[in-house]
Formats: sequence, C-alpha cells, structure tokens
Amino acid sequence: MLLLIPGPVTTRPEIRAAAAQDYAPWDLDFRALYARTLARVLHAAGGAPGEHAALAIQGCGHFATEAAIRTFVPRGGKLLVPRTGQYADRLIRLAREAGRIPVELPIPADRRVDPALVEQTLRADPALSHLACVYSETSTGIVHDAPALARAAGRAGRRAIIDAVSAFGALPLDMGALPMLDAAVFTANKCLEGLPGLGFAVARVDRLDACRDQAESWSFDLSDIHATALRSPGSFRFTPPAQVLAALDRALDFFEAEGRPARLERYTANMRALHEGVRGLGLTPCLAAEMQGPVIVNVHAPDDPAWDLQLFVDALKARGVLISNFANTDFPSFRVGCIGAITPADMEGAVAAMAEALDALGIRTRRAA
Amino acid sequence: MLLLIPGPVTTRPEIRAAAAQDYAPWDLDFRALYARTLARVLHAAGGAPGEHAALAIQGCGHFATEAAIRTFVPRGGKLLVPRTGQYADRLIRLAREAGRIPVELPIPADRRVDPALVEQTLRADPALSHLACVYSETSTGIVHDAPALARAAGRAGRRAIIDAVSAFGALPLDMGALPMLDAAVFTANKCLEGLPGLGFAVARVDRLDACRDQAESWSFDLSDIHATALRSPGSFRFTPPAQVLAALDRALDFFEAEGRPARLERYTANMRALHEGVRGLGLTPCLAAEMQGPVIVNVHAPDDPAWDLQLFVDALKARGVLISNFANTDFPSFRVGCIGAITPADMEGAVAAMAEALDALGIRTRRAA
Repeated sequence: MLLLIPGPVTTRPEIRAAAAQDYAPWDLDFRALYARTLARVLHAAGGAPGEHAALAIQGCGHFATEAAIRTFVPRGGKLLVPRTGQYADRLIRLAREAGRIPVELPIPADRRVDPALVEQTLRADPALSHLACVYSETSTGIVHDAPALARAAGRAGRRAIIDAVSAFGALPLDMGALPMLDAAVFTANKCLEGLPGLGFAVARVDRLDACRDQAESWSFDLSDIHATALRSPGSFRFTPPAQVLAALDRALDFFEAEGRPARLERYTANMRALHEGVRGLGLTPCLAAEMQGPVIVNVHAPDDPAWDLQLFVDALKARGVLISNFANTDFPSFRVGCIGAITPADMEGAVAAMAEALDALGIRTRRAA
Repeated sequence: MLLLIPGPVTTRPEIRAAAAQDYAPWDLDFRALYARTLARVLHAAGGAPGEHAALAIQGCGHFATEAAIRTFVPRGGKLLVPRTGQYADRLIRLAREAGRIPVELPIPADRRVDPALVEQTLRADPALSHLACVYSETSTGIVHDAPALARAAGRAGRRAIIDAVSAFGALPLDMGALPMLDAAVFTANKCLEGLPGLGFAVARVDRLDACRDQAESWSFDLSDIHATALRSPGSFRFTPPAQVLAALDRALDFFEAEGRPARLERYTANMRALHEGVRGLGLTPCLAAEMQGPVIVNVHAPDDPAWDLQLFVDALKARGVLISNFANTDFPSFRVGCIGAITPADMEGAVAAMAEALDALGIRTRRAA
C-alpha cells in the first residue's frame, strides 16, 4: 500500500523493522542512539553544538509547536501569525489557549506571505515580540519562504518561530544564518520519513537560557528539556517513544545518504508527476504550477454527480494507493501527499490508479466543480 | 534480551510486528481500530459508554497526568498530593508549573497512604478541590490503595485524580464504582504491555463537560479531546503515534485473553520469584514482603567495595537481562521490573543471571550497605 498523505508517510522497511524491537530507554546503547539522533537533527538544521540545541519532545507537531510558543513568548505576549491556512489557524488557537495574544495577518489562500508586509506589520506594533509562521502550509500546499519571513522579523528587531512540521528534511533551514530565529519545530514522520510520535524543536541556547520558567507547563518547557539534556546527556525527559526514536535513527541514515537538496528534488519531481498527471486526466489542481509546493497537491473535485470522495478513496485503496478521505479546502477537493519513501514512478502509478478509479465510479466530467 | 524495567516492558513479537507497518490515521480501517481500542480501554477501566470516556493523548504518562490536572483543577485551584515518592513529586511539580497549587501530604517512603488521613486533611482545608495520588509508586514499589483514597476524597466531598500509569491493566480500577473520580491516567507501555508513546485518561463525561476551557492548553485539554471525539468519531486529535496505537490494539487481545486478575497474579508471582530469589542470593529487598507491590522491586546494593551499578547492569546485559542503570532511592540500590510479557520462570532466570553477575564482579558481601 502506497501512502500518499502528507505524513505519516510511506516509510522504508528498514525503518519499520527498527520499530519492531524492545528498547530500554536508559540503556547505554539507547542513550548513544538518542544522542546521535539529536546531533544529526541539529546538523540537518544548520545548528552549531553549544550555540543551538536539538530538543526532542514526545507526541506530535502540535505539541512541539505549543512548546515553542510557551517557551519563547511569555503569557500576555503578542505574536504575529500570517493566516496562511489551517496550520496557521492551529498556531493561532494554541497560542490563544496558552494565554498568549496572537495577532492575525490575513493572507489570501493562493498567495505567498510577503516579507515586506510582515516587516511593516511588526514595525507598526512594538508589542509584537515574535513572528510565528508556517513554512509548508499543508492545508493549501503552498510553501512560504519562512527563512525570508524570519529575516523580515529580524529587520524589525523581532524574533521568530517557524512551524517547519511538513517542511524540515526537504526545504532548507539554516539556523546559523538566522540569529533572530528562536526555534523551528517539526516531527519525525514527514520529510524525515520516520514514524509518527515524536516532535522536535531546534532552538538557540542563549534564548533557551533567557526564557527559563515562562512556559507555564513543565511538559512543554523547552528550556527544561535543554537543562535536563545538559544535566544528564543522552537521557530523554520522561519515557520516550523508543521505537519511534530508533526508527528515526535509521531514517536519518537514508536522509543523510540522499542529502536534503536531493530529497527536495525528488519530492518536487513527485509533485510535478502528480500535478501534470492529474491535468492529463482532465482534473484541475487547486494551485497554479508556480505556486505549488512539493509536499502536497490539492486537486479540485470533478464536477460530476457521481463524485464521492470516500468512494474515490476506496477505489484508489483497492488499487494500492491511500490518500486522505477529507479535504482541507472550502470547496470539494482531494489531497495527495508527495513526500515519503516514494518516487515519480510511484506518482505515475497513482495517477494511473486515479484514472481507473474515476472510470470505475463513472465520472465523465473532470473539470472543477 | 529480557527487559526488566517498569516500562517500557518486554513485549510479545505479535505486538512489535503490528508496529512494523505504515498506517494512514484517517483511513476507515484505522479509525475502526482506534475506536475499538478506546472502547476496550474504557471497558478495562470499568467505564460505561456515555457516562465515561476513554481519551487518548500522544506522548507519555507525564503528559496525560498534566492534561488531567489542567483539565479538572482550575488555575489557582488547590489539590492534595500524598508525597509517596518521585512520581508524586512529579505530580507536585507539574501542578505547580501549571499554576495550580499542590498541597503536600508527607508520607513515609515505606508506608501506604492512610485513607483516614487523606479524608481528615481534605476536611481541614475547604479550598482543596481535589486529591491527586499515585496508585503504583514506581520509585518505591509500593502500591497505594488509590480507589480507597478516592473514596476518602469522596467522603470529604472532594474529587480525585489517579495517576495509574504503572498500575492500569494489572491493579483494579472500576470507574463505575468511583463517582468522585474525575480521571485516571495511564499509558500503553506498562501493564497493558504495549509500546511507549501513547497516554490515556479515562474520565467522567459530565465532568469533561463541566470543565471546558480551563486547561489553558489546547494540547492538554481533555475536554477538547472528548469534544473532538464526539464531533468526529474515530478521529484522533492531531497526528497519532499510529504504530504505537496499532501495537496496543494487538496487546489488548492478549490482555483480554489473560484477564486483568490473572495478569495481576502473574505479575505478583514474578515479584515473589524475584523477591525470594534475591534474598536467596543474600541480597536485601528494600521493602518487606507485605509492603512490596507487584510492579517493581528495589533491592539494596550489597555492602561490598566491588559494587558498581553500571558494571552490574552490564554483566546482567551480557547475560540477556536488562535492568535500569539508575536508582530511585536515597541509598545505593538497584531496581528490577516485574511487569511485561514475562513469567516467574523468566524471573528465576534473571536471579540466576544476578548470581553469575555478582560472582563475576567479585562481590562477596551481599548484605545491605
């Protein structure tokens, strides 16, 4: 079965095999594995040991994001959030529920965030200490230039937090070149091609030190995770998802062998094969090619009375291709992930399966509803 | 390798095999698996659908505990915590960092909490809305009668939260008989014999409804997890650790086939084999037999200059037995878990390995330091 959802992704059998073992998290061999994983993640983020830290947190990307917001933005603090889609909306809600004050910057769903607009908006309100933005907005498929947005925040004298959940491992991130960046957060199960259950933040050590005791949550205090790591190297704070961590260690072997730029090229080729393939079927991708990011492609539902998303998903599943059975758009659509241990040939196979599925459902009209 | 730590535990190969697959969390088959898992967990907790709910949360037991405290105790609210050991201390710290006010009830490390003392202490301070207590205190190995303590809270007109992390699945819990219990929290990887990465709360639905919007954390709001489950049945809030969940579903097959009372008997037999076995080697368990719970046994380090915990752990590991390489006591000791897919014969094998390891290290004096 080919998983074409934007995480959890299709993984390699070697990675899943690493999950099929028992691990004692405090065992010296496991500590070495954990320390190695953090070092590899830090390196992938362009971080320098001592200046930056990679911090692991149990759970999902949402948890890592809440941890970053709580750790770096104090209660009552204001942060600017460009409203790029559902993941930006999540950022806004989690910040609000944590007692921080998110200020929304409206962004058309089919446009990239303009760094100049971010800089100008931040300058207009000195109370905005942070920009928090989504790098790859999984709900639309648009990649926003998060490093450029962070630099815009820096020019305005503010700090930045990047939700890099569906970006990290494919899209570039260079902590060393972004001194205004407090943290970028991501998970093991997107472009790193590991299993779900583990989040990460990469953060500046000076900022972790400066922001102690303001998270108002022990679980979500990145400063405490860092302090624990210094006190007891290789020791995970609270019980880790050991199998997921071991799987990630294996996944990083493949990541490093492929290289981040080549992985981005592969995903981009996957996306193009899909984008062109669905147009070849008479379907309409939601985004023009020049706005389409490499992580996920939304496609307009065909304007045919026989269209039914779940039936289409079922017909694809019967042909070995699993896509999401829900849409993230205000209009009928379906979404197909382009990341994971998959190639353009897999995408061509998926397009062929879509052709069969559309025929099996008797869908003749293919244009957008 | 036999894992003798009090979670993550030794698991069955069938459970690990379930983790070695890719899963799409929103796939209808996976939704059915998730819904079935929640129903089974609720049943195991003595909960009634509609009256009680089983709620899954990504991460570890600490996260589930923080979620329960935040959800049911408002900011500035006071909760009584019997200080039974390190896990009670964790409860105290996480409550304090969340802006709740923990009131500590000192308990000698080798004594069970007296329900009458809890009732009396609660009656003396009307501001204490909750008792929060640890069922199986993993740091000492003592099982406290958490249901009796919850009833004592009920007699005082207060509510209760039980940290059942290393208890649930072996020690009894009957939500239906404990109307004063807001929630019990636990994880997949202790007595349920699943993998780490997933926490649970079982909670009263009326209390989840009454306590909306006081968690001050979207991630840790059990009321929102419940509301999401009602709105979208079978849908996990945020990306789940899908492999860990699938492994738990398989683990529950074995749990239900064995039965909770038989599992407790097996663990108790494991503990007795170990407790008697180490005494047979001349070593001294930290607790008298009548105080010793079935989950973990702490053993005094031998008063011999050749004793070195890591060397002992290494010598055991070379013989296929993995125990913790740290102690939870104020004095030198080692700890051995009795839970997981293991039998008294395994414990006898572990004792034989300990005999060899002590000899290999040249440890002649076996009495407590």
